[in-house]
Amino acid sequence: MHLDALDTPAVIADLAVMERNIAMMAAHCREVGIPLRVHTKSHKIPEIAHKQLAAGAIGIACQKLGEAEVMVAAGVTDILIPYNIVGPLKVERLTRLAKRATITVAVDSEDTARGISDRARADGCTVRVIVELDIGTKRCGVQSPEAALALAKTVVEMPGLEFIGLMLYPSRLEARPFLERTLELLGAAGIPVRMISGGGTGAEAASKQLGCTETRSGSYIWEGMTRIGGSAMLNPERCAGRVVVTVVSLPTADRIIIDGGMKTFASYPPTPYGHIIEHPDAHIYGMSVEHGHVDVSGCSHRFRVGERLSVIPLHQEMTLNLHDELVGVRDGIVEAIWPVAGRGKVR
Amino acid sequence: MHLDALDTPAVIADLAVMERNIAMMAAHCREVGIPLRVHTKSHKIPEIAHKQLAAGAIGIACQKLGEAEVMVAAGVTDILIPYNIVGPLKVERLTRLAKRATITVAVDSEDTARGISDRARADGCTVRVIVELDIGTKRCGVQSPEAALALAKTVVEMPGLEFIGLMLYPSRLEARPFLERTLELLGAAGIPVRMISGGGTGAEAASKQLGCTETRSGSYIWEGMTRIGGSAMLNPERCAGRVVVTVVSLPTADRIIIDGGMKTFASYPPTPYGHIIEHPDAHIYGMSVEHGHVDVSGCSHRFRVGERLSVIPLHQEMTLNLHDELVGVRDGIVEAIWPVAGRGKVR
Repeated sequence: MHLDALDTPAVIADLAVMERNIAMMAAHCREVGIPLRVHTKSHKIPEIAHKQLAAGAIGIACQKLGEAEVMVAAGVTDILIPYNIVGPLKVERLTRLAKRATITVAVDSEDTARGISDRARADGCTVRVIVELDIGTKRCGVQSPEAALALAKTVVEMPGLEFIGLMLYPSRLEARPFLERTLELLGAAGIPVRMISGGGTGAEAASKQLGCTETRSGSYIWEGMTRIGGSAMLNPERCAGRVVVTVVSLPTADRIIIDGGMKTFASYPPTPYGHIIEHPDAHIYGMSVEHGHVDVSGCSHRFRVGERLSVIPLHQEMTLNLHDELVGVRDGIVEAIWPVAGRGKVR
Repeated sequence: MHLDALDTPAVIADLAVMERNIAMMAAHCREVGIPLRVHTKSHKIPEIAHKQLAAGAIGIACQKLGEAEVMVAAGVTDILIPYNIVGPLKVERLTRLAKRATITVAVDSEDTARGISDRARADGCTVRVIVELDIGTKRCGVQSPEAALALAKTVVEMPGLEFIGLMLYPSRLEARPFLERTLELLGAAGIPVRMISGGGTGAEAASKQLGCTETRSGSYIWEGMTRIGGSAMLNPERCAGRVVVTVVSLPTADRIIIDGGMKTFASYPPTPYGHIIEHPDAHIYGMSVEHGHVDVSGCSHRFRVGERLSVIPLHQEMTLNLHDELVGVRDGIVEAIWPVAGRGKVR
């Protein structure tokens, strides 16, 4: 089936571009000498995870337990969940998962660790644990090397947990003093560190320089507008994600309306909304919930109702998270329609 | 089951509040003397549509054909689609639907009308059509009374279409000259107008004053922060929608992290992110994709990992659009778990 036979709005992946992005990142990490763990929250599709693993990734990261369950069911065997898993329902699912695959989970508090330990002990299994450092991101993570040591000691002592190492995000050289001091303290305490997980697309070399044992990257497969820095710097040749839309209204000479708005693109003001490949001079200046509003005053092209346009969304990950399927296209031909199997797995 | 037994994040509806909002809007429209057509894009759940119809609504509006299909399958018999339906795949679905229920659709161009007419003629059915006026919203809609007349004449002449009337959004008194002149022209041309559909929650009286035959309202069932005007003016007693989240990290004394971010709340900066009912002094100052960042420096309460919070989201409709189910709760007890049946029906 040709792409033009799909109804709109449709979220598509240009497979040649996506595969090139996957291959380039794999090559980059090999050159740098850092093992790559792919963050699949960027797509939530097992088939794409398997392409990334086939290109050499050592495992995946999932931000939600529900996504990890989908990936284990699809045969992925090594998953890092860089998220504090809290609450009895979740820790039970975590230990079930840990019996089926190599699962590593981040913690930043004794409370989180104890919740997992209690359940793992009851279930007779062991969960691999890393301690998250807040290296200045000001999100989760322990605040000092001393706090990291204290939590690592606690984890080491808790039944059902295996202390594996450390995690940080994003990898940047400013993290070196925090990380090195933590490693010193752990070394002095005789606590071995087998894993240091850094992360952030574009931070692969920094992960290596920091001494990480792996780096987590996700959004590189799309190379969307947020990654590249806005439409002025956009290189559509690198962007694998598209939303195909239809012009549904031509109310005035300078305005067209497309059949995708906030519920299709997940874009809110004042961000740019997307880049129209066929007509870079057409400017998506606004979105209501179901309509995209496009200023075409700078275009010589005469648009018509029913015309189709290909839009690079601002943030492919957030866009895809609104949709149930991703259409894989090569040279204009539909090659795959993948359910976004991890979408909606919010817990 | 008690609400506290649900895992988080969970999107819930306080049924008592929601039912009061439904009853109040129904009473308001009866007082004003304007028939109410409920816009179900605010929830996409057939069971809630039936509650609204039982309270006296004359029908529903759906923004997407796929939502209308879900609603017809659930027994709803009168649906307005205030959206230009364009393209062969969609018009075929539209005519199929028109054979099963009373379907009215808005058009603002001859191209859109012709696409529907061609298919309706081929299928041997008739589709009810209204012409959308752009009364200054600058989205879709014809630009002048003369253009409305011309399009109405075209629709009248096209086989398979039945011209029914006009549509505008939102209802406001400034629209009167445009609307009255259009009605004059249609009257002079001998084209009867049976339906004038106005819209916008809060615009019911304006619809009546403009002479509309019905008014479309949707977001009133939630009365979320965008409706009421931000947290300063927020009246939680009127807000039916909540997201229950868990505190997953306490990195510092002034910051807690909750297990809902942009993929849970559909909120982007610089909007407010939500209102924490239990601790109005706690301020959700940021969201990353999977985490909510809360400033608790103004709270005397000592938060703990695992604690649950109830957040009124900025925009319940957009939030619900990310989730597969809505939990109906009364007095803390789960009464219903509704699939968001229209979610993901993006075409």
